[in-house]
Amino acid sequence: MTTSELQKLLDSVKAGTLDPSAAAQLIITAMRAAPVEDLGFARVDTHRELRQGFPEVILGLGKTPAQIASIAARIVASGQALLVTRAQPEAYEAVREVVPPATYHVEARAITLPQGDIPRGRGTILIVCAGTSDLHIAEEAAVTAELMGNSIDRLYDVGVAGIHRLLSEQRRIQSAHVVIVVAGMEGALPSVVGGLVKVPVIAVPTSIGYGASFGGLAALLGMLNSCATGVSVVNIDNGFGAAAAASRINHT
Amino acid sequence: MTTSELQKLLDSVKAGTLDPSAAAQLIITAMRAAPVEDLGFARVDTHRELRQGFPEVILGLGKTPAQIASIAARIVASGQALLVTRAQPEAYEAVREVVPPATYHVEARAITLPQGDIPRGRGTILIVCAGTSDLHIAEEAAVTAELMGNSIDRLYDVGVAGIHRLLSEQRRIQSAHVVIVVAGMEGALPSVVGGLVKVPVIAVPTSIGYGASFGGLAALLGMLNSCATGVSVVNIDNGFGAAAAASRINHT
Amino acid sequence: MTTSELQKLLDSVKAGTLDPSAAAQLIITAMRAAPVEDLGFARVDTHRELRQGFPEVILGLGKTPAQIASIAARIVASGQALLVTRAQPEAYEAVREVVPPATYHVEARAITLPQGDIPRGRGTILIVCAGTSDLHIAEEAAVTAELMGNSIDRLYDVGVAGIHRLLSEQRRIQSAHVVIVVAGMEGALPSVVGGLVKVPVIAVPTSIGYGASFGGLAALLGMLNSCATGVSVVNIDNGFGAAAAASRINHT
Amino acid sequence: MTTSELQKLLDSVKAGTLDPSAAAQLIITAMRAAPVEDLGFARVDTHRELRQGFPEVILGLGKTPAQIASIAARIVASGQALLVTRAQPEAYEAVREVVPPATYHVEARAITLPQGDIPRGRGTILIVCAGTSDLHIAEEAAVTAELMGNSIDRLYDVGVAGIHRLLSEQRRIQSAHVVIVVAGMEGALPSVVGGLVKVPVIAVPTSIGYGASFGGLAALLGMLNSCATGVSVVNIDNGFGAAAAASRINHT
Amino acid sequence: MTTSELQKLLDSVKAGTLDPSAAAQLIITAMRAAPVEDLGFARVDTHRELRQGFPEVILGLGKTPAQIASIAARIVASGQALLVTRAQPEAYEAVREVVPPATYHVEARAITLPQGDIPRGRGTILIVCAGTSDLHIAEEAAVTAELMGNSIDRLYDVGVAGIHRLLSEQRRIQSAHVVIVVAGMEGALPSVVGGLVKVPVIAVPTSIGYGASFGGLAALLGMLNSCATGVSVVNIDNGFGAAAAASRINHT
Amino acid sequence: MTTSELQKLLDSVKAGTLDPSAAAQLIITAMRAAPVEDLGFARVDTHRELRQGFPEVILGLGKTPAQIASIAARIVASGQALLVTRAQPEAYEAVREVVPPATYHVEARAITLPQGDIPRGRGTILIVCAGTSDLHIAEEAAVTAELMGNSIDRLYDVGVAGIHRLLSEQRRIQSAHVVIVVAGMEGALPSVVGGLVKVPVIAVPTSIGYGASFGGLAALLGMLNSCATGVSVVNIDNGFGAAAAASRINHT
Amino acid sequence: MTTSELQKLLDSVKAGTLDPSAAAQLIITAMRAAPVEDLGFARVDTHRELRQGFPEVILGLGKTPAQIASIAARIVASGQALLVTRAQPEAYEAVREVVPPATYHVEARAITLPQGDIPRGRGTILIVCAGTSDLHIAEEAAVTAELMGNSIDRLYDVGVAGIHRLLSEQRRIQSAHVVIVVAGMEGALPSVVGGLVKVPVIAVPTSIGYGASFGGLAALLGMLNSCATGVSVVNIDNGFGAAAAASRINHT
Amino acid sequence: MTTSELQKLLDSVKAGTLDPSAAAQLIITAMRAAPVEDLGFARVDTHRELRQGFPEVILGLGKTPAQIASIAARIVASGQALLVTRAQPEAYEAVREVVPPATYHVEARAITLPQGDIPRGRGTILIVCAGTSDLHIAEEAAVTAELMGNSIDRLYDVGVAGIHRLLSEQRRIQSAHVVIVVAGMEGALPSVVGGLVKVPVIAVPTSIGYGASFGGLAALLGMLNSCATGVSVVNIDNGFGAAAAASRINHT
Repeated sequence: MTTSELQKLLDSVKAGTLDPSAAAQLIITAMRAAPVEDLGFARVDTHRELRQGFPEVILGLGKTPAQIASIAARIVASGQALLVTRAQPEAYEAVREVVPPATYHVEARAITLPQGDIPRGRGTILIVCAGTSDLHIAEEAAVTAELMGNSIDRLYDVGVAGIHRLLSEQRRIQSAHVVIVVAGMEGALPSVVGGLVKVPVIAVPTSIGYGASFGGLAALLGMLNSCATGVSVVNIDNGFGAAAAASRINHT
Repeated sequence: MTTSELQKLLDSVKAGTLDPSAAAQLIITAMRAAPVEDLGFARVDTHRELRQGFPEVILGLGKTPAQIASIAARIVASGQALLVTRAQPEAYEAVREVVPPATYHVEARAITLPQGDIPRGRGTILIVCAGTSDLHIAEEAAVTAELMGNSIDRLYDVGVAGIHRLLSEQRRIQSAHVVIVVAGMEGALPSVVGGLVKVPVIAVPTSIGYGASFGGLAALLGMLNSCATGVSVVNIDNGFGAAAAASRINHT
Repeated sequence: MTTSELQKLLDSVKAGTLDPSAAAQLIITAMRAAPVEDLGFARVDTHRELRQGFPEVILGLGKTPAQIASIAARIVASGQALLVTRAQPEAYEAVREVVPPATYHVEARAITLPQGDIPRGRGTILIVCAGTSDLHIAEEAAVTAELMGNSIDRLYDVGVAGIHRLLSEQRRIQSAHVVIVVAGMEGALPSVVGGLVKVPVIAVPTSIGYGASFGGLAALLGMLNSCATGVSVVNIDNGFGAAAAASRINHT
Repeated sequence: MTTSELQKLLDSVKAGTLDPSAAAQLIITAMRAAPVEDLGFARVDTHRELRQGFPEVILGLGKTPAQIASIAARIVASGQALLVTRAQPEAYEAVREVVPPATYHVEARAITLPQGDIPRGRGTILIVCAGTSDLHIAEEAAVTAELMGNSIDRLYDVGVAGIHRLLSEQRRIQSAHVVIVVAGMEGALPSVVGGLVKVPVIAVPTSIGYGASFGGLAALLGMLNSCATGVSVVNIDNGFGAAAAASRINHT
Repeated sequence: MTTSELQKLLDSVKAGTLDPSAAAQLIITAMRAAPVEDLGFARVDTHRELRQGFPEVILGLGKTPAQIASIAARIVASGQALLVTRAQPEAYEAVREVVPPATYHVEARAITLPQGDIPRGRGTILIVCAGTSDLHIAEEAAVTAELMGNSIDRLYDVGVAGIHRLLSEQRRIQSAHVVIVVAGMEGALPSVVGGLVKVPVIAVPTSIGYGASFGGLAALLGMLNSCATGVSVVNIDNGFGAAAAASRINHT
Repeated sequence: MTTSELQKLLDSVKAGTLDPSAAAQLIITAMRAAPVEDLGFARVDTHRELRQGFPEVILGLGKTPAQIASIAARIVASGQALLVTRAQPEAYEAVREVVPPATYHVEARAITLPQGDIPRGRGTILIVCAGTSDLHIAEEAAVTAELMGNSIDRLYDVGVAGIHRLLSEQRRIQSAHVVIVVAGMEGALPSVVGGLVKVPVIAVPTSIGYGASFGGLAALLGMLNSCATGVSVVNIDNGFGAAAAASRINHT
Repeated sequence: MTTSELQKLLDSVKAGTLDPSAAAQLIITAMRAAPVEDLGFARVDTHRELRQGFPEVILGLGKTPAQIASIAARIVASGQALLVTRAQPEAYEAVREVVPPATYHVEARAITLPQGDIPRGRGTILIVCAGTSDLHIAEEAAVTAELMGNSIDRLYDVGVAGIHRLLSEQRRIQSAHVVIVVAGMEGALPSVVGGLVKVPVIAVPTSIGYGASFGGLAALLGMLNSCATGVSVVNIDNGFGAAAAASRINHT
Repeated sequence: MTTSELQKLLDSVKAGTLDPSAAAQLIITAMRAAPVEDLGFARVDTHRELRQGFPEVILGLGKTPAQIASIAARIVASGQALLVTRAQPEAYEAVREVVPPATYHVEARAITLPQGDIPRGRGTILIVCAGTSDLHIAEEAAVTAELMGNSIDRLYDVGVAGIHRLLSEQRRIQSAHVVIVVAGMEGALPSVVGGLVKVPVIAVPTSIGYGASFGGLAALLGMLNSCATGVSVVNIDNGFGAAAAASRINHT
């Protein structure tokens, strides 16, 4: 119930066409209602675009292809953009049956379908990536950011052990509006990048590494303890989350 | 040996029909005996229903289908209800051979056979679940609670990032006698639910998540540190344990 | 705004004594209002007793004596029972200045003042404690449970290494309505107690121990992995939380 | 050496007033030079404001009062704004001797002196804080953000266990340009806030808690695993870092 | 109630001097009774010497001097040997008031009073210690083992980085009946010792070290993963536990 | 070189049949020599039985079937008993080709061949096991202990949640010379057993469990923090190590 | 741009054949340029040999065979030596298609092709290895060190539990210029070796072990806490890194 | 016993002036002897300089001032250089009483006295340090390296967030023979330095930081996972160990 609907209802009460008791009940009911569609195993939040600027996104992890397809169909039917992250090829097969025009991004492991009227962000989101092995996550960020209406630039394989690779690209780095830095192993890249730019840096630790990398823990701790200012961190391998945060920054 | 049996034995001693030495031996033996049936690899506790209100439950994890079937057959033969948790389909195949009427709950990964006279609980156990990916655990709790004689209500996919989905169901939440809250990732849902109700809340962290979720550790720690009162916690993915605790509450 | 207040307001609209626009504004305002008193550094929730059965409790940890005294004064002034946990003697000095009749429980490190009309719980809460060193936490639970309207029974120093100490008290154990088990070191006591009773067991790990106890982590993990059913767990050293959960069970 | 200085140098070479070898040496030297002042134990970066929008900040932790004062004097002498975080009162005593107009913020444990021409940010930074015990960190963020040229709004003690305290302030929440959410214990607040706004959310876990809070680890993991989008995280107790990141967002 | 007491009671029943009902009650009572003396805060187990070969030992950690003295007095009064571990000098002051002949071992931080008839062990317990900093723990083991009736031999400061120090003492090492090896840092000494002897080796990790020693965790893990056979491990800094285990071995 | 060989050599020097320089070289060489057979990838220690009472044991983990078979053949050829632990069926196939009489113990995952003259231990080693899922490890201990010359007794599936199962077998428990206790989940069983016996207890944590069991860490920490005396601990799932330690105790 | 190139450019400016503005632009461009070849997914650093003494090495982990082959082809084409570590057989298949003479080292899981003019190191690198199961890592170190121009010596299966195996090889140990020690389980070997030699020791923990080895963490912590001086440590299973560090030592 | 002493002894046997039995005994005794002086609580290894190039060093941590002074006196009396690390001022007071010329280095917390004939290393050891707060550890390394006969160069406060501070000192960096890099927080500096030089890099993580630095764990993990080659790592805060390793490199 919007403010104007409430005003109209109260006008009806004044006009005597609506009984005060009935009106009270209607208001209470509206306060309880929510734009949520119940599929039994999931409640699709079809008004999320209104509240948060982008429709509900489906995390493919831990859901069956059938569940993913069912939620995807409902989102697309409501005219909204579709994004499924961590989607296996089987999930894409299931989604394509009910949403034929959907695209599968192999490197990013994401299913997308642009729809609706996503506003454009103010500047460019630069995605910096330390090594070839971090590509999955960097591409998840890239696909997400693009679908959310942002221009993106990619700067890949510029780890700190060959610092000149990074320094030789300072122009591109400094023209970004937000920088996403994806790195595994020791996760040192965001500290160096954070010292080169004035804009916000979102750091994404990846699970790339072995031994004392402990599944990305080393990179995560490194980024949280960054001596550079302006760096904030998302979960290990969370390319989507970094892009969503960067997109919010780019749209505010 | 019950108190009445002891009384009878002592009467025999007084009547001279039983020698004191023999009686002493009988009492000592009875003190050592226990209603436990030894299968070699397992000791089936067929009197557990008397002591604890529900027969012994079989944890399928780490047992072979043959071992599970053998224990299941023994429990059913003693007239008690059967519950096997974490049961793979192969385990069900083996159990069905010796206990044909047993049912397999795919989502809950549980085998059940209601038997005996399970008393009904006092109220409803509400099972709240944060996301679609937590369904396995929520259903394990639901199947367990039902078999233990409780009415249950399900409220699924109401994670805190869309708090209105939860708030719009306050009536159902507040009519529960006990609430089980199942959540992975950050495990914040029990804190919010705990602030909305007067009744006990059992929190179940799940291993759903990735990266710094560390197999459910993040959710577990979140729930243990809940700022809401009245929340207690069970092991990660322990839907069964939550239901058993809730059922004890509902039957006391 | 209660339902009856809403009805009255709408009657005024119908009677024409209240303009619909003004009424709409009043309703919106009421929806936003909350029974919260803002002290600048804290928002005292003076209606919590209505919603959750017991007033807001002050966690003394990390608050200055002056802050504690200020919140305490506000709670007492609203006619509600006072409970401050983890209170240092200095905090008590500050509270006593503004709430002279408040009591300090040295062993439990708690400040209390019973007030208002706390309903009595249905049965007895038994507090079992493994060793002398766990007394602080057991007493925090005892003081909390008593203030919340519960009868309590104490069974202290009955650790599992001398199992006969526990078994010889089975009668008291089995007459409880809820059992709180407080244990440090390996935290094995709840598993044994859980196997002896039909009622809910709330386990409280304590930080008592050294070396690989890791500040209570060993006991916490032990309790979460309990092979007994019906056991749920609260945070390390959280005697208050266990009592609050037990009291909810005892009042439902 | 700026581009114009380089152009001038090369003009001299062409004009014959500068020998090519000498010029080569000058360029090489300039490439190696950096605007860094060496105090022996520290290299003060007096050009950081040019590169990053705010001068070098002194982390008080692990430095002696004399070291802090010495660096502070150098920064102030270069006409830049002064910020010392994690400053003990003794550090303030030492700083005041050399920088008399500096201010000490007791709650925030920070020393500040506004200087130079810090540009104003675009909107308001809202600082949300879960509990009274998190005030130190929230205030560190507030003092930092203000000194960096941002308007701030404070919303304190609105933890998720009393969700209505937060929901009743939705208007303030939704008018912010960036939101910093400070929370200890389970760290659930950023997930709820993240679901209510469209703007970026910076989450700050605090070390408030006990037992399985493990010095803020529980809150940190909770925030990293947030199911809300648009949330990024800084180090435990890093109010300064959150404010710096938020200020970058607010100035981009 | 011993077997002979039970026989006697049943003889009385047969003789008619004891009513069967009364006898039944007596037996039930005896089954519940246990040789435990309740001091309120502690249950002193005065029969432990009968069951386990050595009286109850007082862990000083987490107990007040008054509590320690009170339990100590009770143990000594029952004619048993006294051992208080982890005893601060203040605890000794309190104990000496009630048990004047007690001795304080400064290095071992233990209070002892030999009493009763402790049987002698079969051979010598050798206590090997890696470094000077591990002396506290080695001495706790030595004092404990001696009081429990064992001959002991000390071989201190023979860490593996100077392996010849150890190898030059092979004769003493090989004449021991049990070996206790105390080591901090990397905890490698038990592996080397385990490869030199045929007898059981009890390894005690100590919290000596810094950085990645993590309070003894490195040594503990090292010892648990020992590639030598015949090595078992006790808790970090648990010199007492090692001696108690060694004494059991030496007395069996 | 044995002492008698040395004596003989020196006699030759005196007799003039051996040059002092040559003798010096021989002694130096002997000091360097060791009864080790180099297979390239492994050095088989064929004199270990002399030094430690039992020949070298092959840990199957991380070795190829061919490597295992090659080492096994060499041990058997030297007339010693063969034990391969953690042996997959493929390893057994390879071993059987070169050592046809070897036996495979499926439950224990071990390959054995008794040979040589292993002395008998003094008493019985009792192997107590908490649950059916711990059988693999308990059997590894049993097979090892038997091969090492010990009489063994098995007491399986007597977890603490049904404490009467354990207490009813006290006679068997108390007649053991050493007790090995195998338990997963919370690992509480050794504490209870340790309180019932006078003899040494070796605790073996298993990786049985899920969630916060963390691969046996919970059981391991529980056992290290046992409040019972006389308990020492081996690595998670190390049934072999427990048996080897118990056998040393039983042979000393 | 080298110094001589810069001198030449400035001579042209002086000679008037190059405009100062154009020259300025050339210098700026050169400062930004770097000898990096961009393959889209990777930036091959073909000048690394000049800067660091050995060309870029390909970590096979997390790269597809096609990616590995593509980078390998580019390195070989530039006349440099090829080393791919952690290479699966499929990666070798792909590399062989584009670099036919490349060799696959099965035990070391490495692909190599010697090329160019690698200088010889000063002495021998000794690779010591605790057990047969550590061979993969020891061989990775051996293959790497050889390709980098070092003489190597192998001393395998000399774990500390049979210390004589190590001591009998002291001559070889003491003739090394650098020692690499590879060990899993408790990781004690570097401490013993470090005490026997004067030269630098590089310790490599391996993930060999089970239970509380926690994937090599126990060995890693043991090595970091080594009581021997002169020992430094690389990541778990990082045979390559140890060899690279040893080679730098051997070439300096 | 040296080789020449052995030769002489055997000559005596041949000459008949020494009985073969007596000679055998002498040789056995010599094999057992070691140049170790037993102080009761410590065994001073006065021949370590011969074996390892530098005398035994005293770790002050966990030793009393009296113990330190006693060991120091013995080392100095044998004509060797003295180094006490982690020495509190009280330890220095005690040492000065028995070794008056000893020096105390406040920043490094070390006591030194150069003595004997320490050979000079081949080149310069450069000590690079990320921040002012890491000075204690950097100075411990500097003092140690100097005493061990090395020329050193210091480059302090060049953390990666201001990468130009480091890059502007490339000449000094590249003229070093070994580089020690000391860094806390995210520990990224060794990766960048490792990419700039050809020589060995020893990384020292420090415990500087807060929150998720976890006492230096973040820096330690970062350094172990360094993407630069040629980097090896020592324990957290182990400036001494880094210098000892660097000195071995510099002397080999």
